[in-house]
Amino acid sequence: MSYFEKVNQIKYEGPNSTNPYAFKYYNPEEQINGKSMEEFLRFAVSYWHTFTGEGSDPFGQGTMVRPYDKFSGMDLAKARVEASFEFFEKMNVPFFCFHDFDVAPEADTLKETYKNLDEIVAMIKEYLKTSKTKLLWNTANMFSHPRWLSGAATSPNADVFAYAAAKVKKGLEIGKELGSENYVFWGGREGYETLLNTDMKLELDNLARFFHMAKDYANEIGFTGQFLIEPKPKEPTKHQYDFDVATGLAFLQSYGLKDHFKFNIEANHATLAGHTFEHELHVARINGMLGSVDANQGDPLLGWDTDEFPTDLYSTTLAMYEIIKNDGLGSGGLNFDAKVRRGSFDPEDLFLAHIAGMDSFAVGTKVAQKMIDDKVLEDFVADRYRSYTEGIGLEIVEGKTDFKKLEQYALGLDRITNKSGRQENLKMILNQYLLDAYRG
Amino acid sequence: MSYFEKVNQIKYEGPNSTNPYAFKYYNPEEQINGKSMEEFLRFAVSYWHTFTGEGSDPFGQGTMVRPYDKFSGMDLAKARVEASFEFFEKMNVPFFCFHDFDVAPEADTLKETYKNLDEIVAMIKEYLKTSKTKLLWNTANMFSHPRWLSGAATSPNADVFAYAAAKVKKGLEIGKELGSENYVFWGGREGYETLLNTDMKLELDNLARFFHMAKDYANEIGFTGQFLIEPKPKEPTKHQYDFDVATGLAFLQSYGLKDHFKFNIEANHATLAGHTFEHELHVARINGMLGSVDANQGDPLLGWDTDEFPTDLYSTTLAMYEIIKNDGLGSGGLNFDAKVRRGSFDPEDLFLAHIAGMDSFAVGTKVAQKMIDDKVLEDFVADRYRSYTEGIGLEIVEGKTDFKKLEQYALGLDRITNKSGRQENLKMILNQYLLDAYRG
Amino acid sequence: MSYFEKVNQIKYEGPNSTNPYAFKYYNPEEQINGKSMEEFLRFAVSYWHTFTGEGSDPFGQGTMVRPYDKFSGMDLAKARVEASFEFFEKMNVPFFCFHDFDVAPEADTLKETYKNLDEIVAMIKEYLKTSKTKLLWNTANMFSHPRWLSGAATSPNADVFAYAAAKVKKGLEIGKELGSENYVFWGGREGYETLLNTDMKLELDNLARFFHMAKDYANEIGFTGQFLIEPKPKEPTKHQYDFDVATGLAFLQSYGLKDHFKFNIEANHATLAGHTFEHELHVARINGMLGSVDANQGDPLLGWDTDEFPTDLYSTTLAMYEIIKNDGLGSGGLNFDAKVRRGSFDPEDLFLAHIAGMDSFAVGTKVAQKMIDDKVLEDFVADRYRSYTEGIGLEIVEGKTDFKKLEQYALGLDRITNKSGRQENLKMILNQYLLDAYRG
Amino acid sequence: MSYFEKVNQIKYEGPNSTNPYAFKYYNPEEQINGKSMEEFLRFAVSYWHTFTGEGSDPFGQGTMVRPYDKFSGMDLAKARVEASFEFFEKMNVPFFCFHDFDVAPEADTLKETYKNLDEIVAMIKEYLKTSKTKLLWNTANMFSHPRWLSGAATSPNADVFAYAAAKVKKGLEIGKELGSENYVFWGGREGYETLLNTDMKLELDNLARFFHMAKDYANEIGFTGQFLIEPKPKEPTKHQYDFDVATGLAFLQSYGLKDHFKFNIEANHATLAGHTFEHELHVARINGMLGSVDANQGDPLLGWDTDEFPTDLYSTTLAMYEIIKNDGLGSGGLNFDAKVRRGSFDPEDLFLAHIAGMDSFAVGTKVAQKMIDDKVLEDFVADRYRSYTEGIGLEIVEGKTDFKKLEQYALGLDRITNKSGRQENLKMILNQYLLDAYRG
Ligand SMILES: [Co+2]
Ligand SMILES: [Co+2]
Ligand SMILES: [Co+2]
Ligand SMILES: [Co+2]
Ligand SMILES: [Co+2]
Ligand SMILES: [Co+2]
Ligand SMILES: [Co+2]
Ligand SMILES: [Co+2]
Repeated sequence: MSYFEKVNQIKYEGPNSTNPYAFKYYNPEEQINGKSMEEFLRFAVSYWHTFTGEGSDPFGQGTMVRPYDKFSGMDLAKARVEASFEFFEKMNVPFFCFHDFDVAPEADTLKETYKNLDEIVAMIKEYLKTSKTKLLWNTANMFSHPRWLSGAATSPNADVFAYAAAKVKKGLEIGKELGSENYVFWGGREGYETLLNTDMKLELDNLARFFHMAKDYANEIGFTGQFLIEPKPKEPTKHQYDFDVATGLAFLQSYGLKDHFKFNIEANHATLAGHTFEHELHVARINGMLGSVDANQGDPLLGWDTDEFPTDLYSTTLAMYEIIKNDGLGSGGLNFDAKVRRGSFDPEDLFLAHIAGMDSFAVGTKVAQKMIDDKVLEDFVADRYRSYTEGIGLEIVEGKTDFKKLEQYALGLDRITNKSGRQENLKMILNQYLLDAYRG
Repeated sequence: MSYFEKVNQIKYEGPNSTNPYAFKYYNPEEQINGKSMEEFLRFAVSYWHTFTGEGSDPFGQGTMVRPYDKFSGMDLAKARVEASFEFFEKMNVPFFCFHDFDVAPEADTLKETYKNLDEIVAMIKEYLKTSKTKLLWNTANMFSHPRWLSGAATSPNADVFAYAAAKVKKGLEIGKELGSENYVFWGGREGYETLLNTDMKLELDNLARFFHMAKDYANEIGFTGQFLIEPKPKEPTKHQYDFDVATGLAFLQSYGLKDHFKFNIEANHATLAGHTFEHELHVARINGMLGSVDANQGDPLLGWDTDEFPTDLYSTTLAMYEIIKNDGLGSGGLNFDAKVRRGSFDPEDLFLAHIAGMDSFAVGTKVAQKMIDDKVLEDFVADRYRSYTEGIGLEIVEGKTDFKKLEQYALGLDRITNKSGRQENLKMILNQYLLDAYRG
Repeated sequence: MSYFEKVNQIKYEGPNSTNPYAFKYYNPEEQINGKSMEEFLRFAVSYWHTFTGEGSDPFGQGTMVRPYDKFSGMDLAKARVEASFEFFEKMNVPFFCFHDFDVAPEADTLKETYKNLDEIVAMIKEYLKTSKTKLLWNTANMFSHPRWLSGAATSPNADVFAYAAAKVKKGLEIGKELGSENYVFWGGREGYETLLNTDMKLELDNLARFFHMAKDYANEIGFTGQFLIEPKPKEPTKHQYDFDVATGLAFLQSYGLKDHFKFNIEANHATLAGHTFEHELHVARINGMLGSVDANQGDPLLGWDTDEFPTDLYSTTLAMYEIIKNDGLGSGGLNFDAKVRRGSFDPEDLFLAHIAGMDSFAVGTKVAQKMIDDKVLEDFVADRYRSYTEGIGLEIVEGKTDFKKLEQYALGLDRITNKSGRQENLKMILNQYLLDAYRG
Repeated sequence: MSYFEKVNQIKYEGPNSTNPYAFKYYNPEEQINGKSMEEFLRFAVSYWHTFTGEGSDPFGQGTMVRPYDKFSGMDLAKARVEASFEFFEKMNVPFFCFHDFDVAPEADTLKETYKNLDEIVAMIKEYLKTSKTKLLWNTANMFSHPRWLSGAATSPNADVFAYAAAKVKKGLEIGKELGSENYVFWGGREGYETLLNTDMKLELDNLARFFHMAKDYANEIGFTGQFLIEPKPKEPTKHQYDFDVATGLAFLQSYGLKDHFKFNIEANHATLAGHTFEHELHVARINGMLGSVDANQGDPLLGWDTDEFPTDLYSTTLAMYEIIKNDGLGSGGLNFDAKVRRGSFDPEDLFLAHIAGMDSFAVGTKVAQKMIDDKVLEDFVADRYRSYTEGIGLEIVEGKTDFKKLEQYALGLDRITNKSGRQENLKMILNQYLLDAYRG
């Protein structure tokens, strides 16, 4: 049975194509940095947005009716698995990601829930044997059920902490079972609503205890996937403890966890925190902590997480610039944590949106790689900081000086000459690279 | 004497050029919509940012030393005029704009100030006789001097109102003298700091009185330039009365001023008000009030008016889409109300920044015109709203129905079928037009 | 049967009370401005937040289980009516407000939906015969069902427009039947998601046509309730047409609708639009358009509509300042369009939150009235603008001058002297009034 | 000679006073937590805002003319010192703070600049011998002069780094000479404008090198003042490296600097970073890093640093709550990094504004102390987290469990019961404490 009858296999047709159901820029076989685009970009479909999302928002019900919605319960779960692998194949996407309750319904008891999960996980495992698509990461949904209302590992209620531990334990087992390359922690409710009723210190201590136990258990069962923290500043919580990369880094360092984690960076979370996407990628990169990416975009004029499919070519270019400089994402990938708009309710929109995202990242990759090949920014930067490669600058960098010597040097300075940062010109050069990318 | 010795005439060299001091996309002679790009785009240089701006910010002094800075007083003013026309010519830009005190220093008395202005205006008039560059608009600075601290036409002090009237009177005379095609009102201090000490009703009444008197005086002296209000929501004022186009429109309607004004829309002011640039252009356009444009861009993550040179090609494309649909800007133009960054302090950066802005708008023009030629959005929109061209929809539009008839119709409806808005696909089509623009 | 067994009648116990279930500041019988607080403040309970809200958010399910949740369908609807009047009585609140589908479930056909509504409306009418609590306003929910995904009166689909007309027709009939004092229009989906697929001009024209038809039908059936537009800038829609009061005013003037509408101003919508609550109240007031208030508060650090119960005493004071200066709200009232936090899931929290809101507005009323009685701000303002009561200022206000006379006056000015706005001192005076309010 | 003739000694007159030039709430001798308010609050005047600020903003010149403005150069500097001690005495404020160039003019050469500084520092030292007012902290202005345009310790130019070293060296010497209790680092230009031209890794490495050298030099000369970093997310810089407390903490940990620094937390910087003031204080406190406070407030609807005098009693109360829980600020204090509004240009406004700030913090202190004495929040919190004091919760906290044991526990859980967070009620309790504070 087909769930997406109207759409056939999406193929690369090149920039001249006017077929909406074709890639114009993403050519999986094109070489980038010694790898195929497919190997390098490691695109992933988000199970939740694509197969369980219905287009509801705080003011309205779902608008999307999918072919499998005639089913319910475990039948629905199974139909979704079938549909998802049809979708993966037609999109030709190498990875997917899921939360536990995206794939199997939560039951009344934990035991039954496990049973549901086991059944679906076995089914997915069967698919994975033959499918080209693999599991990039899995995670546990610890934010939707009312029990998580004040947090999971940071709940004021120890029972909730224990329940969360059971969930992540199961998640790690599932990750191992399905060969997941990473395990993600997004703490949607790990934060506070008001300081008036909150013991932040205890909550953070508990969060660290939780992470240590998770790592211990992963080691115990031999799950080797990379642990990833996904920062987000707020929403649904008023303040989320993993506000941004820097905040996560402070926490990991404070609690001796830094070596066990990297970051999964989402574009829209970056902008909600007041940063650009590339800033968060950069900060993670220079700290050796860039693990994976939730590829989407926000609306700079809206104050919530819109999770739009990424189509801004500046953003995809500057993101890929960081990723290429990072020598790729290792075990991570580019996961479309993105949902079609509520008004884009046709099943076909799912394909069109993924095409938009994949094409936009392909363009970004090409532009970024060309800029790196030409060293257009690197040469400018090298020249701008040249003073640190000789003389007093080199002494500073090599730790061979101190305030007294520097003062003597400064007293002897006749005149300090700075160089223009040329921001306007650099931005136009970026434009030129963009407009040149497909001029052939 | 040359003030910009290092830079020669900026010429169009095409997309393959790597000469920083050349246009790659802006070809003044290229035809767009039956006009040359030069005639259609009507670029203008802002005198204040380019010739009097020094790169100061609230935390630091100016970083820019210009060749004419060796002069002072009226000598400086004259040197700046000389430099400006050298710049206009080298940039090949058809228009410029100024505030009174950009061009001539304010003196101790109004009478002396007039004298300074008269002398410089005469000098500019001489230049205008032979220069290809014309005056797009002039205005009066009524925000810098301490007397304006609580407003000009909305000051609690009637003396200040009178002084403002004198300034605008002179401004209109200067506009007439120099053949200015518009006169702009930006009310930087026309607003309030706190409602606790403010009589908003009186201030708005006075503002309307001021505008009526201005119009009367323009009529009296035969100044036919278009009056333009430039909305801005805040900064320097906590709340500015001309918050955005809609607010300005409400005001103009309330006070019987609508026929006498259009809007000068600045991109960065739009985003500070929570709108996109194209939104403000669109609202002005469909109300027949799109007069002129302050072409710049803001930083979506910064909460103040950064007045950056426009390089975002999405923004220039969507702006030009509105402008082309408006059949151009009439007597208005694209004024670069934009300043080079504080770190871009070389005189050469002024050229590089204007090149970036002009090239970016040229690209936007080309992309927008192609989309309009292909009716790619128009056809989609026409199809989306087709139901209003027949049956009940047509009756609605033609005013031939009422709630009772509509209820009868609704009771008979079997099922309502909406169409997908295809937002993701439309955004990618925009990308494709952008990437195709220079593929030849 | 009782739905809120744990809570008894809420009574005024005064500032010394430590009983959580008592008013400390809201004394319904206390006189304010010649009326009792109860008559003057006209508090209303929002049916949706209080009786149908479940504490869900975009990332989580509802957390609130109410006693009536054991029922479903029409039984649930009826149980909620019973519970609501128990709540109104225990809270001693004079008004309530509802959307059609808060009180009765939407059925498969419009006809059946009408039937559901008729049954519940009849039941409410019975309650109203004996209850002290009256209907402040009703409205039609035209944003939750998928049919409204692209708007109601501004939908691209004429069938949707017709359906919306039927809904509002019914709403007006219900309003008349239940003696509603107002009818509210909040256009949650009347706006756009992207200009790329939108015909804004047609949508606005249609919205105006819709409002005219609504007014015509109200006149036809003799429904005399005040029509109210509730502005909101965004959410759920990217851009909402009724952005703020000024935008609404521009629209109403453009389409000849100004005389038929006033505004229902919500605090959180004001701040989302970049304004203070009191700014929106003030703008409506000086235009004679202040109709009613949705009393809540937002979180200035969160970018979405949090609809919190109002507890900020600065906000309630400055709001009441405007309302007292407006001689009250006429047929309008203070409707708590506010929801208990997701973590405040006990039924008791509904009482505690309404107590907080009512007490906070009672404090604000007392502080504002005292400031008005003492003319503490009015005298300061009068002195600040005194120059417009004599000489040149009076001539300006009386329209007896022009730019030429004003220039003559300005040329003769020796020196302009402004007065300090004393903002810091005024803010501390406000504090002193607040701290003094209950010193007895 | 007197510089502030119109204002006499500001004294405590109590809540009933209507004398604008008196404290109504700040009674220096009142006991708080075993200390006098004066000892506990440690108020400081900011030299820059109060004695060198002129009321300029990005769109306008200064509005404030001070009695010492008739002087210039070193004469002006000396007159300001005289005026400042007159002000300190009349305000009865125990501390002040300054940047080097607030007190002495920067000269053409570093050597001459040192000379200017030495002369003024000697003069201040004389005053300190007899004045009750002491130096809370000093710092070096490394953001105003053009040389700092791309940073000081993070400049791309090694000469600038050296110059900065000389400046801080001198600053530490001045701190020692004047008995300063702290030394502050605010990196206004330590950040980037665009990643396109930036080597963030090198800049951060250099910043850490700089801090280590500063610490070494302080040790060498025996300067024992506390080193403080003042986080700010942006402005003037697009991105500032010390974004917020968490970011600063990550940096200090990464570079082995944590033990040598605490934070100086400014309210307006907190809100610009997307946090509440109390959040930043809290994060610093639970990390043992709360050093000092820049007491001011921002405007939640404006996107820049308004540095307003603190008058929001919620903010002062919640800040003092953190400070009392921290057992005070140690060597730190409450520095009014606040400026009178541009419209509050009278010298008297300086007094009125400081009175407003001091009174507002006195109120906040009293309210916070009463809440702590009554354990009103502490008891609620203790009850909310009680599950961690016994059973499985205690095992979690004591590290005696793991995922397997927790899973077993979770499998045995019948039903998880959470408690309401009572946010609305807690906020109203806060109101009640506020309104009760001066009921006697
Ligand atoms: Co994500
Ligand atoms: Co997201
Ligand atoms: Co402008
Ligand atoms: Co601007
Ligand atoms: Co509302
Ligand atoms: Co709301
Ligand atoms: Co500060
Ligand atoms: Co500040």
